[in-house]
Amino acid sequence: MTALPLPPVPTRVVAAPMAGGPSTVALAAAVGEAGGLGFLAAGYRTADAVAEEVGRLRATSTAPFGVNVFTPVPAGSASEVRAYAELVAPRAAALGVELGKPVHSDDDHAAKVAVLAGLRPAVVSFAFGLPPAESVERLHAAGVPVWLTVTSPEDAAAAAAAGADALVVQGWEAGGHRGGLSDPEPAQLGLLPLLALVRRVTDLPLVAAGGIGDGRGVAAVLAAGAALAQLGTAFLRTPEAGTAPVHAAALAEERPTTVTRAFTGRSARALVNRATTELSGAAPAAYPEVHFLTQPLRAAARAAGDGEELHMWAGQAHVLAEAVPAGELVRRLAADAREAMAAARF
Amino acid sequence: MTALPLPPVPTRVVAAPMAGGPSTVALAAAVGEAGGLGFLAAGYRTADAVAEEVGRLRATSTAPFGVNVFTPVPAGSASEVRAYAELVAPRAAALGVELGKPVHSDDDHAAKVAVLAGLRPAVVSFAFGLPPAESVERLHAAGVPVWLTVTSPEDAAAAAAAGADALVVQGWEAGGHRGGLSDPEPAQLGLLPLLALVRRVTDLPLVAAGGIGDGRGVAAVLAAGAALAQLGTAFLRTPEAGTAPVHAAALAEERPTTVTRAFTGRSARALVNRATTELSGAAPAAYPEVHFLTQPLRAAARAAGDGEELHMWAGQAHVLAEAVPAGELVRRLAADAREAMAAARF
Repeated sequence: MTALPLPPVPTRVVAAPMAGGPSTVALAAAVGEAGGLGFLAAGYRTADAVAEEVGRLRATSTAPFGVNVFTPVPAGSASEVRAYAELVAPRAAALGVELGKPVHSDDDHAAKVAVLAGLRPAVVSFAFGLPPAESVERLHAAGVPVWLTVTSPEDAAAAAAAGADALVVQGWEAGGHRGGLSDPEPAQLGLLPLLALVRRVTDLPLVAAGGIGDGRGVAAVLAAGAALAQLGTAFLRTPEAGTAPVHAAALAEERPTTVTRAFTGRSARALVNRATTELSGAAPAAYPEVHFLTQPLRAAARAAGDGEELHMWAGQAHVLAEAVPAGELVRRLAADAREAMAAARF
Repeated sequence: MTALPLPPVPTRVVAAPMAGGPSTVALAAAVGEAGGLGFLAAGYRTADAVAEEVGRLRATSTAPFGVNVFTPVPAGSASEVRAYAELVAPRAAALGVELGKPVHSDDDHAAKVAVLAGLRPAVVSFAFGLPPAESVERLHAAGVPVWLTVTSPEDAAAAAAAGADALVVQGWEAGGHRGGLSDPEPAQLGLLPLLALVRRVTDLPLVAAGGIGDGRGVAAVLAAGAALAQLGTAFLRTPEAGTAPVHAAALAEERPTTVTRAFTGRSARALVNRATTELSGAAPAAYPEVHFLTQPLRAAARAAGDGEELHMWAGQAHVLAEAVPAGELVRRLAADAREAMAAARF
């Protein structure tokens, strides 16, 4: 079986899908118009809402774009979720809200895949493990390339066998949710060794993600053999992104990040704050139950500009993120990458 | 104050110092003769032994080389060391040896610096934090460039202020001891973001280390702005390295690494084995007391070919290490790096 080709991305820059607000139609359009590959994030949205977003994006821009879809994961332990709810309840009360219902959900997976097979974006990428075989088949039947997210060479072998057309190779440095098959990840592989280890098991095109903060980082992952460089945190402070203001401001501060399940029940890299410090040790592996449980609390924190109870996703290079228009950022990343490559020759 | 320049390294490849056996005169000579920068590891040796090694290397090769020296660190908690000794004693008994005396030591620091100021290698690098100001002054007075090891931008600012001529930038991926100022490191920075964050605080030349396993990795860190690429694990299986056979064989296996204080009392990345699994949670921050404590146990394990009680240092790309002559490896890394850069142009 031959993999479907990558869409043309003249700048080699992909703006990572960032569900829950940051990824917007305006961001995807600006990135695409500048010669990058923009992404819509279908997570936490209904299939209808995704279709509506695709329609709005196509009304704005003719550039290719991708859509990211969550893969259904097994339910967590109900008793662990109840225990965590008791621990978190006082924090919600302090913000004047009640906790949400910790329901399990497949995030409308099949309906979204069906809609996207019809709409045919340039790429559909998946996070949180391998999608059902029908999802891959349905998209392939429609001619839509499927990208799968991996965080280890074992993931990569499984994703290649599942029919991936390209792999999003997510290093330990990456902000936001860990997108691979395993949680936790004992190997915690940084992006450079991960790219080399994945290359040993597959010839598929690799989209490098995690801790890339500038044009030199883009050049580095291309030199390491990636076909494209995917940046998320770097776009969080652009005016087109729907990032919470308190989050966007905190990204510019020198502060450490940590990988935590405290907010959603699935490991994700965030800025260290009171919530990650006090809750990370207790948070169960139960996604999306914990996401729904803490959602009202986090929404209240966001509205109050309270950065201590909010999930402020951030990659390790977050302090490099600049508040510049997304199109300008894409063009600058590509120009700086070219300059870095020329300067590195020996 | 102007930094002393880097020595000429036509291949851009540095063979990292690996104390405790792997770094040999033969390895440094082979690397230097092939156009890399070889290192002698002065750690755990007397000043006289270091002088003798420098003499032997100079009798073999006229290529420039570096010498790595440990920086003295404060003593750990005696009661924690006693408790750890009780935990580890049965493991030593099982191998038929007694534990060593958990003495504190500055590893003959001042004497080594005095000898090296006289012998004037091309570089003296330090690990485990900032050396005493006198050490830097003494080497500078002799015209010897000083490289300091950093694992965070805060380290980098301190090292630049301490008079470093270049920084060894050690990513979280690196095998062996963490060489920076802090242990533990909350930020756990991967090499690519670390290089970018360090560049924000200093213009010093950067020597990138951690998880570089092949020519693409070399190309990547040069594109990221490093002046040189330092590889350690990649050289562990060369015939010139003094690596324990059980260790060299284990590097070729697909197995995870972990950062542990179990063997020496200071965090270091090693292949996961029974010792790291059972002892990492209990091992105190007490270097080199724990090193001396466990030394007879580890020597017995090495002699017995027992990889479960031995410190098998390994970076995250360890499976890429090949059993080829060191000079051939240096030349191949440089050729592959050039090819990777050419292929990455866009």
